[in-house]
Amino acid sequence: MGWNTGTIVERSMRIALDAMGGDSGPAVAVRGGVEALQHIESDFELLLVGDPEAIEEELEGQNLPGDRLRIVAASEVIGMGEPPVESVRRKPDSSIVRGVQLQESGEADAFISAGSTGAILAASILILGSLPGTDRPAIGALLPTTTAHPTLMLDAGANVDCKPQQLEQFAHLGHIYMQDVEGRASPRVGLLNIGVEAEKGNELTQEACRLLEESGLNFVGNVEGRDIITGLCDVLVCDGFVGNVALKFYESVSEYVAHLVSRAAAGADMFVDLQAICRVLDYAEYGGAPLLGVDGVTIICHGDSPARAIRNAVRVAARSVESDMVEHLRRELAELAGGKA
Amino acid sequence: MGWNTGTIVERSMRIALDAMGGDSGPAVAVRGGVEALQHIESDFELLLVGDPEAIEEELEGQNLPGDRLRIVAASEVIGMGEPPVESVRRKPDSSIVRGVQLQESGEADAFISAGSTGAILAASILILGSLPGTDRPAIGALLPTTTAHPTLMLDAGANVDCKPQQLEQFAHLGHIYMQDVEGRASPRVGLLNIGVEAEKGNELTQEACRLLEESGLNFVGNVEGRDIITGLCDVLVCDGFVGNVALKFYESVSEYVAHLVSRAAAGADMFVDLQAICRVLDYAEYGGAPLLGVDGVTIICHGDSPARAIRNAVRVAARSVESDMVEHLRRELAELAGGKA
Repeated sequence: MGWNTGTIVERSMRIALDAMGGDSGPAVAVRGGVEALQHIESDFELLLVGDPEAIEEELEGQNLPGDRLRIVAASEVIGMGEPPVESVRRKPDSSIVRGVQLQESGEADAFISAGSTGAILAASILILGSLPGTDRPAIGALLPTTTAHPTLMLDAGANVDCKPQQLEQFAHLGHIYMQDVEGRASPRVGLLNIGVEAEKGNELTQEACRLLEESGLNFVGNVEGRDIITGLCDVLVCDGFVGNVALKFYESVSEYVAHLVSRAAAGADMFVDLQAICRVLDYAEYGGAPLLGVDGVTIICHGDSPARAIRNAVRVAARSVESDMVEHLRRELAELAGGKA
Repeated sequence: MGWNTGTIVERSMRIALDAMGGDSGPAVAVRGGVEALQHIESDFELLLVGDPEAIEEELEGQNLPGDRLRIVAASEVIGMGEPPVESVRRKPDSSIVRGVQLQESGEADAFISAGSTGAILAASILILGSLPGTDRPAIGALLPTTTAHPTLMLDAGANVDCKPQQLEQFAHLGHIYMQDVEGRASPRVGLLNIGVEAEKGNELTQEACRLLEESGLNFVGNVEGRDIITGLCDVLVCDGFVGNVALKFYESVSEYVAHLVSRAAAGADMFVDLQAICRVLDYAEYGGAPLLGVDGVTIICHGDSPARAIRNAVRVAARSVESDMVEHLRRELAELAGGKA
């Protein structure tokens, strides 16, 4: 167990990672965490949450800095199909509940999981709570675009029936995230709609458009489905139903195309341009989806995340903590609520 | 003018084509119509609606069966950006209004246009009217899938705020269309949703799911965004907001990928598999989007439709007329309304 015998050093932040989440269990999650320790510059300690035996088995033979890695025992696992709120209540010693609690108790600054999205969402809301001024948190999905930068689409599925005010809140959440974590100076905010003109859309987007025009944000107007991948905006606001359909649709198209391209590429000398297709469509590039609007840092990864996606999620978590994103969100939302009062 | 000097023969159906619609004007529309005459087996007469001089110019030098082609003069054109209802009212001699009227007056059996979707929709509703039992007609988009058959997604944009009963109507419209025009024996109907379980979704889809379960249709349940292109169902029901976003998103991804693939393919020996990507993603393959629920046959084509898409739209229109689709829709909707009464 050479990995935890080093000198104890107080690291500037601690990131908790659900070692049990994801379709491949501890193997991929632990490998992603180990890669993060090896490749990410930030000064953090990694807390692997889950079954100690299973985790130690995955760590066997790894040469790791002992003072940067710790196991936090959790005896239960919430399965992908379990009802979210009920499973969170019934499994207090699950890796998801324990992992989120580490922030509440001050033992960690962020939590990452590739487990059940619903359970991560429920645990984060129940344990961390929402930031004042947020009706409900939103899932932000970083979508690769045809430019060098991703677009943050939110909500990607946490809120299926939204009010216009919630869409405005999502815009503020996304604005701060893209400033703090992605380093965009003045993020362009767009509203996903069925036409570019301000009067276009359904009842929800027509009213949300009016609110966003007066929001003080860098609102670039309505954005159509055809411009989701063109990078026309940095933050793309929509309700969680539309966002979830669009996200899953995108993933399926990209998976399918990547499959065909790589199959063809295996037997032929391919042009570099074709690799660009895979790069553009590879949503794993951005690691995970931040849950924005909770009083803490929660990153939700895909169930079938490869180790690289987990590693990138750790990078996103580290940047979120380093930039003090949650405090910026708290301030932005308080101002928003104050302006309305 | 060798193209209209033949013997007059009464054809079994007449299909009107807007010669002025689409981004490329008469050139592409007329070429598509001519190709349809040359390649489609059905016994139809083609009515080209628009500016006679411009149309004759495009027909110059073509060797065409004179008894199968006629020009119907229309002096006005509705532009892509004009307000739909207003432009239909203010331009009674536009190619769209005249073209739709040909069905009302019994001079044609179908109308095809690559002009303004909003104007085609407005003209069809105002002039042809909705079928009894239909709150509002829906636009059906034929999406290529990874199988050999397309999925009909509706509504693709005509109704941005829907009631559950409308989604049920869409299912019946799509059911008849896929039976009559695409020859599916028992079309599988799916509901676009954010999870497969019956209780998933927003208020609209939760209630629509219950209605569809009792509809007597071959309802296969909720379908997620990831299964839009996998051909899991023949008819995919959704509200027009989600459908429009998904359709435009799909088109943009496919255009982008097709662009990259063809650029790479131009300089390399490519495997056939790569051509499969373009085929799957090529929505022009299916020609046009039927407007379902109006008392007539209206096919809406993309503004940038190539001639092949126009030709395929004529094929779809011919099949719709030959199969007596509108009468089947009338019967199905009457039964639906009767069952509810």
